[in-house]
Amino acid sequence: MRTGRLEAFSDGVLAIVITIMVLELKAPEDTTFQSLLSVAPVFISYVLSFIYIGIYWNNHHHLFQISHKVSGTVLWANLHLLFWLSLIPFTTSWLGENEHYDEALPVATYGFVLLMSAIAYFILERTLIKNHDENYLLALLTANKVKDYVSSTFYIGAIPLAFVNTWLAIVCYAIVALIWLVPDKNMETLIDEVEA
Amino acid sequence: MRTGRLEAFSDGVLAIVITIMVLELKAPEDTTFQSLLSVAPVFISYVLSFIYIGIYWNNHHHLFQISHKVSGTVLWANLHLLFWLSLIPFTTSWLGENEHYDEALPVATYGFVLLMSAIAYFILERTLIKNHDENYLLALLTANKVKDYVSSTFYIGAIPLAFVNTWLAIVCYAIVALIWLVPDKNMETLIDEVEA
Amino acid sequence: MRTGRLEAFSDGVLAIVITIMVLELKAPEDTTFQSLLSVAPVFISYVLSFIYIGIYWNNHHHLFQISHKVSGTVLWANLHLLFWLSLIPFTTSWLGENEHYDEALPVATYGFVLLMSAIAYFILERTLIKNHDENYLLALLTANKVKDYVSSTFYIGAIPLAFVNTWLAIVCYAIVALIWLVPDKNMETLIDEVEA
Amino acid sequence: MRTGRLEAFSDGVLAIVITIMVLELKAPEDTTFQSLLSVAPVFISYVLSFIYIGIYWNNHHHLFQISHKVSGTVLWANLHLLFWLSLIPFTTSWLGENEHYDEALPVATYGFVLLMSAIAYFILERTLIKNHDENYLLALLTANKVKDYVSSTFYIGAIPLAFVNTWLAIVCYAIVALIWLVPDKNMETLIDEVEA
Repeated sequence: MRTGRLEAFSDGVLAIVITIMVLELKAPEDTTFQSLLSVAPVFISYVLSFIYIGIYWNNHHHLFQISHKVSGTVLWANLHLLFWLSLIPFTTSWLGENEHYDEALPVATYGFVLLMSAIAYFILERTLIKNHDENYLLALLTANKVKDYVSSTFYIGAIPLAFVNTWLAIVCYAIVALIWLVPDKNMETLIDEVEA
Repeated sequence: MRTGRLEAFSDGVLAIVITIMVLELKAPEDTTFQSLLSVAPVFISYVLSFIYIGIYWNNHHHLFQISHKVSGTVLWANLHLLFWLSLIPFTTSWLGENEHYDEALPVATYGFVLLMSAIAYFILERTLIKNHDENYLLALLTANKVKDYVSSTFYIGAIPLAFVNTWLAIVCYAIVALIWLVPDKNMETLIDEVEA
Repeated sequence: MRTGRLEAFSDGVLAIVITIMVLELKAPEDTTFQSLLSVAPVFISYVLSFIYIGIYWNNHHHLFQISHKVSGTVLWANLHLLFWLSLIPFTTSWLGENEHYDEALPVATYGFVLLMSAIAYFILERTLIKNHDENYLLALLTANKVKDYVSSTFYIGAIPLAFVNTWLAIVCYAIVALIWLVPDKNMETLIDEVEA
Repeated sequence: MRTGRLEAFSDGVLAIVITIMVLELKAPEDTTFQSLLSVAPVFISYVLSFIYIGIYWNNHHHLFQISHKVSGTVLWANLHLLFWLSLIPFTTSWLGENEHYDEALPVATYGFVLLMSAIAYFILERTLIKNHDENYLLALLTANKVKDYVSSTFYIGAIPLAFVNTWLAIVCYAIVALIWLVPDKNMETLIDEVEA
């Protein structure tokens, strides 16, 4: 089976996930600058989650540039990833509800969903490698897992940290986002090689 | 007529159906663990419905891998299926409203929409077979209907069972979901044969 | 310019329009059969609008099967059509709010948006014909405008009729929907000829 | 990397952005003509924003007709553009809340998001040119920036003007929209040349 529809469906789900979060950004009742500022906590959590969904879309895009077939198991591994990512609007909304980001549970729950998404992405990669056993490039690409290990460590650390100081956890999430924002030139070179 | 746009439109509708259900998962007002737990009934019904939409997307994906043309009748049979699936967010929301899942009507209505979706899928398959009369594989594939008959029987049984004990009905829905989660190797082999 | 992205974008908008209407179908607070019945007016207006969006999607699909290029003007004519169709969730919601469908203005407004959509579709066809001047088939296809004229006449009639008796107007809308539900074999034959 | 998925994802996000704005158009509680008129401010701001998103989709469509590869940087430049465009439903909703459009801050904020979108689009173009250095046409196309400079000047002017008289600012936004609605024949001729 080809990858076209899996990509189209994932694009659809991620486009909706990234966009419905903006529905939480309710227009202030008032028209003062103070009322605009009161939207700031929701806005900041929206920015963070937008970047995270953007990262997953980017990585998903790269991953399927070098994958050329799917199986029923891959379809389910992909749906499993989309399931956890679909919970991000919920955790974002809970995070943004709290003006000072000083409540532990929403911050920890946010990290938990990120951790589960990372695990789901890892499972999706493994499933794809199994499905492409002759393709050493896929294995190679997914072998360079430094970013993944760092991310997972940060998530696992951030969840208990949230109960000590919520800001420590939020800084962890922001650092992971920054790590992934830096484009991975190695992967792009590999994709160009595969396509050439 | 080719199948491309029917697939794209169905992907769009299913992506939205699967994602708007998460809008029902409202962030708790409080930040205690109890308030997070209070979201559990909505969450569980979300998981069940996510799996069901995932199953339909998977089957639809498989079905159109081996179909290569559509007619006006197929377009309408497909829209009919999407209509019933589009009602799942409504039945999911009603199901999740009830903390202990002990009210018969939401549980029975949930099963009714699943049953109608199964019937609509069956009609779509028949319409496709008519449209591909030279293609024995389609007939072959759809001939192996054990899962379909089991599912329909469970739905038809679950609707009255909901009025006896709601949990018996919910267990029926979960069993059907599990039956479909197991990948159908036969179909994948057939698809590979068709494509080869 | 090719038609691919115009079709993809239209599919996206129509998929969202057809699906967000279901958000108006709020789960009843109660779990009695009466409370389920109270959703009926919203449900019936949802069914009608689902069929209408389905018809437009079908016709759009057919139209672009025989069109092979777009211009900036076609893109705007298409956006103009999508604009009017995007208002259908609003008119559907207003129509469904009224338990007995006996208020003239929501019914007349519903018809007005249908009429504007029909005009927008007509403009889109004209723009495409201009853009494909060598293609007689497009002109041919759009020449058989009986259905269009009947529909427009019914809409124009239904708007004042709504102020006499709302049911007369609703019956007009239902008749137009039925006219379009019957598949147009001529058009499909023409499409097959163009593609062959 | 090819442009297909970037286009599909952008189509998805823009289709959702353009459509969820209609969710702000709440059906009036009453069925009088007055109650319908009370929706007018929300409706007018919807029309303006629909046209703006339409313009961006059109320009994006033209831009990627002549681009044939993407890099990780292009993906992020595109996500950055989508981020600002995703805020338009929020600013539209705030703008439409105010019956007489006479409050400065919502009008200025609306212009600020338009300005940031224009800057993001400019960055996307630069990133694409860098990525296509051999392609003089891209540079040529983006060299004719009269419309862009006029638009940015109007936005930058409109933001302070909103604090003097909100209508002056709104007229600025409407003029920019009109400038872009006029199809750019030069660009279409160029696209046809590239494709030929």
